Amino acid sequence: MTGIRKLHRMERDLLGEKEIPSDAYYGIQTVRAKENFPITGYPPHQELIRAFGYVKKAAAKANSEVGFLNQKIAAAIIAAADEVIAGELNEQFIVDSIQGGAGTSFNMNANEVIANRAIEILGGKKGDYLLVSPNTHVNMAQSTNDTFPTAIRIACLNLSGGLIQVLKELVKAMQTKEEEFDEVIKMGRTHLQDAVPIRLGQEFGAYRRMLSRDLKRIEQSLDPLYEVNMGATAVGTGLNALPEYIEKVTEHLAQITGMPFRRTEDLVDATQNTDVYTHLSGMLKILAINLSKIANDLRLLSSGPRTGINEINLPPRQAGSSIMPGKVNPVMCEVINQISFQVIGNDHTISLASEAGQLELNVMEPVLVFNLLQSFSILQNGMNVFRKYTIDGITANVEHCRALVERSVGVITAINPHVGYETAARIAKEAITSNRPVREICLERGLLSEVELDRILDPKEMTNPGIAAPELILGSDERT
Amino acid sequence: MTGIRKLHRMERDLLGEKEIPSDAYYGIQTVRAKENFPITGYPPHQELIRAFGYVKKAAAKANSEVGFLNQKIAAAIIAAADEVIAGELNEQFIVDSIQGGAGTSFNMNANEVIANRAIEILGGKKGDYLLVSPNTHVNMAQSTNDTFPTAIRIACLNLSGGLIQVLKELVKAMQTKEEEFDEVIKMGRTHLQDAVPIRLGQEFGAYRRMLSRDLKRIEQSLDPLYEVNMGATAVGTGLNALPEYIEKVTEHLAQITGMPFRRTEDLVDATQNTDVYTHLSGMLKILAINLSKIANDLRLLSSGPRTGINEINLPPRQAGSSIMPGKVNPVMCEVINQISFQVIGNDHTISLASEAGQLELNVMEPVLVFNLLQSFSILQNGMNVFRKYTIDGITANVEHCRALVERSVGVITAINPHVGYETAARIAKEAITSNRPVREICLERGLLSEVELDRILDPKEMTNPGIAAPELILGSDERT
Amino acid sequence: MTGIRKLHRMERDLLGEKEIPSDAYYGIQTVRAKENFPITGYPPHQELIRAFGYVKKAAAKANSEVGFLNQKIAAAIIAAADEVIAGELNEQFIVDSIQGGAGTSFNMNANEVIANRAIEILGGKKGDYLLVSPNTHVNMAQSTNDTFPTAIRIACLNLSGGLIQVLKELVKAMQTKEEEFDEVIKMGRTHLQDAVPIRLGQEFGAYRRMLSRDLKRIEQSLDPLYEVNMGATAVGTGLNALPEYIEKVTEHLAQITGMPFRRTEDLVDATQNTDVYTHLSGMLKILAINLSKIANDLRLLSSGPRTGINEINLPPRQAGSSIMPGKVNPVMCEVINQISFQVIGNDHTISLASEAGQLELNVMEPVLVFNLLQSFSILQNGMNVFRKYTIDGITANVEHCRALVERSVGVITAINPHVGYETAARIAKEAITSNRPVREICLERGLLSEVELDRILDPKEMTNPGIAAPELILGSDERT
Amino acid sequence: MTGIRKLHRMERDLLGEKEIPSDAYYGIQTVRAKENFPITGYPPHQELIRAFGYVKKAAAKANSEVGFLNQKIAAAIIAAADEVIAGELNEQFIVDSIQGGAGTSFNMNANEVIANRAIEILGGKKGDYLLVSPNTHVNMAQSTNDTFPTAIRIACLNLSGGLIQVLKELVKAMQTKEEEFDEVIKMGRTHLQDAVPIRLGQEFGAYRRMLSRDLKRIEQSLDPLYEVNMGATAVGTGLNALPEYIEKVTEHLAQITGMPFRRTEDLVDATQNTDVYTHLSGMLKILAINLSKIANDLRLLSSGPRTGINEINLPPRQAGSSIMPGKVNPVMCEVINQISFQVIGNDHTISLASEAGQLELNVMEPVLVFNLLQSFSILQNGMNVFRKYTIDGITANVEHCRALVERSVGVITAINPHVGYETAARIAKEAITSNRPVREICLERGLLSEVELDRILDPKEMTNPGIAAPELILGSDERT
Repeated sequence: MTGIRKLHRMERDLLGEKEIPSDAYYGIQTVRAKENFPITGYPPHQELIRAFGYVKKAAAKANSEVGFLNQKIAAAIIAAADEVIAGELNEQFIVDSIQGGAGTSFNMNANEVIANRAIEILGGKKGDYLLVSPNTHVNMAQSTNDTFPTAIRIACLNLSGGLIQVLKELVKAMQTKEEEFDEVIKMGRTHLQDAVPIRLGQEFGAYRRMLSRDLKRIEQSLDPLYEVNMGATAVGTGLNALPEYIEKVTEHLAQITGMPFRRTEDLVDATQNTDVYTHLSGMLKILAINLSKIANDLRLLSSGPRTGINEINLPPRQAGSSIMPGKVNPVMCEVINQISFQVIGNDHTISLASEAGQLELNVMEPVLVFNLLQSFSILQNGMNVFRKYTIDGITANVEHCRALVERSVGVITAINPHVGYETAARIAKEAITSNRPVREICLERGLLSEVELDRILDPKEMTNPGIAAPELILGSDERT
Repeated sequence: MTGIRKLHRMERDLLGEKEIPSDAYYGIQTVRAKENFPITGYPPHQELIRAFGYVKKAAAKANSEVGFLNQKIAAAIIAAADEVIAGELNEQFIVDSIQGGAGTSFNMNANEVIANRAIEILGGKKGDYLLVSPNTHVNMAQSTNDTFPTAIRIACLNLSGGLIQVLKELVKAMQTKEEEFDEVIKMGRTHLQDAVPIRLGQEFGAYRRMLSRDLKRIEQSLDPLYEVNMGATAVGTGLNALPEYIEKVTEHLAQITGMPFRRTEDLVDATQNTDVYTHLSGMLKILAINLSKIANDLRLLSSGPRTGINEINLPPRQAGSSIMPGKVNPVMCEVINQISFQVIGNDHTISLASEAGQLELNVMEPVLVFNLLQSFSILQNGMNVFRKYTIDGITANVEHCRALVERSVGVITAINPHVGYETAARIAKEAITSNRPVREICLERGLLSEVELDRILDPKEMTNPGIAAPELILGSDERT
Repeated sequence: MTGIRKLHRMERDLLGEKEIPSDAYYGIQTVRAKENFPITGYPPHQELIRAFGYVKKAAAKANSEVGFLNQKIAAAIIAAADEVIAGELNEQFIVDSIQGGAGTSFNMNANEVIANRAIEILGGKKGDYLLVSPNTHVNMAQSTNDTFPTAIRIACLNLSGGLIQVLKELVKAMQTKEEEFDEVIKMGRTHLQDAVPIRLGQEFGAYRRMLSRDLKRIEQSLDPLYEVNMGATAVGTGLNALPEYIEKVTEHLAQITGMPFRRTEDLVDATQNTDVYTHLSGMLKILAINLSKIANDLRLLSSGPRTGINEINLPPRQAGSSIMPGKVNPVMCEVINQISFQVIGNDHTISLASEAGQLELNVMEPVLVFNLLQSFSILQNGMNVFRKYTIDGITANVEHCRALVERSVGVITAINPHVGYETAARIAKEAITSNRPVREICLERGLLSEVELDRILDPKEMTNPGIAAPELILGSDERT
Repeated sequence: MTGIRKLHRMERDLLGEKEIPSDAYYGIQTVRAKENFPITGYPPHQELIRAFGYVKKAAAKANSEVGFLNQKIAAAIIAAADEVIAGELNEQFIVDSIQGGAGTSFNMNANEVIANRAIEILGGKKGDYLLVSPNTHVNMAQSTNDTFPTAIRIACLNLSGGLIQVLKELVKAMQTKEEEFDEVIKMGRTHLQDAVPIRLGQEFGAYRRMLSRDLKRIEQSLDPLYEVNMGATAVGTGLNALPEYIEKVTEHLAQITGMPFRRTEDLVDATQNTDVYTHLSGMLKILAINLSKIANDLRLLSSGPRTGINEINLPPRQAGSSIMPGKVNPVMCEVINQISFQVIGNDHTISLASEAGQLELNVMEPVLVFNLLQSFSILQNGMNVFRKYTIDGITANVEHCRALVERSVGVITAINPHVGYETAARIAKEAITSNRPVREICLERGLLSEVELDRILDPKEMTNPGIAAPELILGSDERT
């Protein structure tokens, strides 16, 4: 009995008393939040925890410098915040990723953990908030409404480094394949129907360029995140935050994180509006859409092997079926599709959350940041294995590609300028119906000579801008 | 060195060899999947694991009865499956929730865990698949493409029990408030503008009825899930599955789970199409939308307390601010909004996954089921605390409600039938402009007598169908 | 000057005066709305206009019967409403499909048009509202908040007739193809990779069944629309609506429309909640998803003709390219995909609008109904031409289908039960690598005899449940 | 009979013959498309038609200059294209906005109209395609797959001019209100609960800044649209397009439109990928979300007038109710919400269409451009009336704003630094419970003097960064 009592300490707030596990660094606000929000079972993203460490450290430094925070207390808070940054107190962050209250529970969880750790550092016992108070000291001159948006920005920027690195590697991998397959001539398809020849390298080049635009778009959307609203406090007016503090806290944040944070021009705006996250999520969504398009293409091109298109081979990664022996599936492409669907759905949730802001605050930020950080993580994780396990190892079935080109009717397009669209269409129709080569029919009808056809029907030539044998046309005004 | 070697066993498949932790029940296919899909870090939902236990048990029984599976092996598989059902092997299910391959990795994870556990039960050593083979025995007459859809159905139906229970409790709680607040007369608002009186109980009654429709919709959408495609094997044609087996495996499944499963009429259809999940998700989405509307209303009605509407009080659940002392926020409503946004986003992902089915299979089912089961869980969790911590404890500010009605101009509507819309509009305009009561102006203009106004302007009367003092109007043809 | 004046009449409301074109049946409220909402340029859907005609007619009948509406006026209103129903006044409905105000502008447009037409019928001049008032008479005992939801229901139900008819024809067309192609054996594909044989008829059967479920889902979602809230007036309390009137107006509505309308049990609920529309839209969304899946499949199966799968032929409908002669594209499938995307986007808009309801009303109904009715129309239009111009004319390339089966490795699955998964996998791998038939390798290795292989590898047999030559396996306990 | 025959001409293509209305400038391809796609009933957006005029004119010039197009024919085509640009042939563009075929029907409609008009200009009769052929001449060196993406870009850029202008005016209007309301002190609200004072001007400043970011985002997303893929022809390889032509056609396009178009670096990429449109749509979506947030805020702040927040007045625009006299609703805000929902839904459709690209082409561009151009138009139309009819006329209820501040408890926050969060929380609780002012309780408890409280509780001071009377705290180490 007494033994059991010792495992808890009592804490009290205006709503009453609560038992807190005696070894917990979190306190009563965290326990209330834990009880109120047993929703997903997912704790905060690790980068969000770390970000709160940075914020609290910067604030303690600034508060100490402007003379409002006792230096001894400040030092203890800073030391505790460093442990949070190092990930040493991760398991003390127990509030659910989806929670009411605009992130107050995240912030109070951080305040309590840092306060109790600081109390210990100062030689006190957990819960002795007269030594270090979660609100009065750790949260000094702060509100959830400036610390949480700032922490979201830090977390996004930290995660973006990895994402961009992996995306750049994927772009590079596409370029490698673009060069490797530059000579592989294959049939181009529009509407999934035979069109005209193209080089496999050109297809990978198109992927590369699209992904390069994603890089640029994401970087554009990250830039506004360097503006933080520390000092905004409750509604952006800066109540209880000295101007000197506001300046200093932002400088410290920049210095501690190594990221060029600057104070937003308008604290009220930055406290209530979430468009910068929606922008970022939107850019991740486009990346997801583009990756899904690429994955779909690769699945089409590698389909078969015997009853599909089979122009390329994806590296086998695992047995594809529990019942069909020898089957190998494009599983890395499929996981990219699914990551894409998840990110698109996440963007939807983020848009809903963003639209639900009201007056001085958007209280839906917890679900917003949960989805945003998840999108970051799964895109980075997915692109990494996609590149390593699929793109890098793609090989081309060069002979099969060439055979398909030769079998196709689409080469008729090159003859178009020489005989006019209407005549060409009749040849095409006959070729398809009779299952004969276009070349043969042209010869038979005396439309073009063998020599001319040799020049006009060269598939490689067709993959670059130009009209084959233009001198045959020029001057022949009666035709065009 | 040799010590380290002992911690692993080697397994081999057609792609080569892999080290498997020696105490792991999973095998090489699982390890490959783990390596291929380091995406979300979330393991399969517990109900999905349990569902695979049911499926494998039913299949072993059926295969044994039709004479294809040795009875000793069958018994061992059944015993191992029982452990899976009991949750005792949960930590052996390590493949990621988002994975390529249409769930093959889920299925193979289950096949391997059960095979290795069965091997142990038969006295063998893990990895000795000559005793019990994950494919040949545990997966006998099965494919991912029938076991996985069946497992999804079982998991959904199992989770639906809890969801429906919690939803019914919420409906009941609304009804309790409907009755409790039946006499509380308050101002109705349309467009957030003053309209005409209503009773607070009527508002809760509207919530109750809307949620009752959700119950019905969800139940309608669950019904098709009782049709399973066990025996479909790879593409729904039933290759390698005897008709007797198909009959028996479904019967066993029904018996083991206690749920009235029946064989689908069309195995091909049930293997490739996912509309039944999309239907279910769509119904969860509507529930989410409705909950969000209710949460929004409650946040409006409890806004203030001093500078908002303040007609009702929500039970305080935690301190609302880290900087503003004494502030209490409607956090339980806010978490409902956020759960709603998540479920709506999940439905979006599910729709995308559903649309991406191709030919004989929808390979996007893993992300689909991940989102679907999450929607179930967070809705159930959220509604539970919403009811307990908010709905049950709502109180009304009766006097304030009445005062707002008396202050309002909207009661003019009751006078409408007596003086015509145009005249009434002029009175209303004057009342608003001059800040005087409607009653006073009517008297002043001699439009109606005091006695008539007493009858016509009774707020309680206005909350039920009817025209006040209709006999004053009837027969007065010149007016209407 | 005087000439110009004659082209307009002046109308006045509490906000001031407006010139109205003298030949217009609409009045000042409509003109204000036209000025306020120059958004899409799309007038109300014709079925919505017609529905308002039904509502106003029913209300006039009921009001007359309960003695509040002068019979002469009632008769004129009814006559005018009949013209609205007949579509004769369509061009007088000029308010934009997207408008603020919860549909008040739709309702007032209807009230004004009917009032002015009734005035004419009574021998008066347009604008002489002392004869018939848009508000006092045409809108008697009504509000936008009961007439508009009721009109939405009528419009949806009217449109649903056509949709269901066309969907049934599509189901029938699928069944015809299911029967026609019952003997066409082809390769099944999962993950776009060769799987095991299936019959083309089975694929169409799967489409048929999926669409049959859509029929059922849509019908389930239509049922709640028969509950109308006429008599709810402003907020659902029924202020200014006599109980006798409420009963009668619903009966008249049922009689006039020939649809079994009934009074909702809870007028407050039905006035503020929009879940019944969201339900309906959700079911249309699933239909859209399913149609898109089918269209995608048909585009895959008809891909080529020379460099794709080419198992089926879609009827050519138009030249496919402005530059590639002879190209024909699956345009009818592509339009189905795009209709599907539109309907899914519309459902998204509808969900947003539904979630935005507040307190006693959902003011976002105009955009909701705009999207809902559009979804109806484009689905009906699209399915109609899809069936006529594509499904009905699909032909199979029977020989090519068979050739692909014979070329494939997937038939190895049938050998699985006879030799075990692991051995079968080795054979499959060798077959793929060496480009040799599975049969040949089995024979070479002495695994099965020619006679046995003839039985086991019969493709037709593989398309139905069963194990080929099960007696070879039964009793051979050492194997399984 | 013969009379009737004269009203049509016969045209023929490879699929057969069709009757064409004799006065129609469109031809057989257009008629086929009209028959195939009776979907929405909406013709192409006017800006899309005009854009095709620009494209065809530029191509004719370039083709003429490189010597492939006879100068007389070129001149006639250019003259006809000018009429298209001038909108004089709008009613000849009859194909549906949603259509299969990747825009081929749009392109052929343009080719046929221009060809027939050019034939007339050259003195021929409509249908005499030997004079001017839609394919061989008007479409020379072009494909749908380069002309359509180019036309989309032109249309978007043309529409963007108007959108940006209107958005700038809205930003300016917000700034005007920001300045006008700079001295209006009111209560800030977070979670819809009383927070701390803020100035009304600050709220409008936050709107202004958010919308300024939208401006920047939209401009960023427009920049990539200046890269066009003219010369890409069928799949981006430039088959049948001379390099000189490619250079010239882009230069002409820039000159004719006055917009700095440049040739894309990668024609293959630009032909198949649609991410630049998705980017643009995503930015419009964020604008929509932001507008919806602003509209929601304005509806909240103007709620009442008697039973809501009533801090501001929106200009009345129309009668708000058909039954409640004198009611005026925030209809301009509501239409903004609905436009927002439409744009968000449109973005969803666009994302789906974008993801559905396959290999060398995205055939879903018609539905994509339909939604994208609609989003442009309705946003521009909506913002224009929103500014004119609402923002410009907003007035503040200054006295009521001040009274609400004085009544509130939130001012306790300013006392926080002086007495610590815990003490302040106890005062706040007592103030709420006892319905007494915070000031009175502080005095009663002797926490601060009257003079100190005068300084600390000045509401104006609270709306700027700072701690009131900081010297009272500094040095008092025992407190912090």
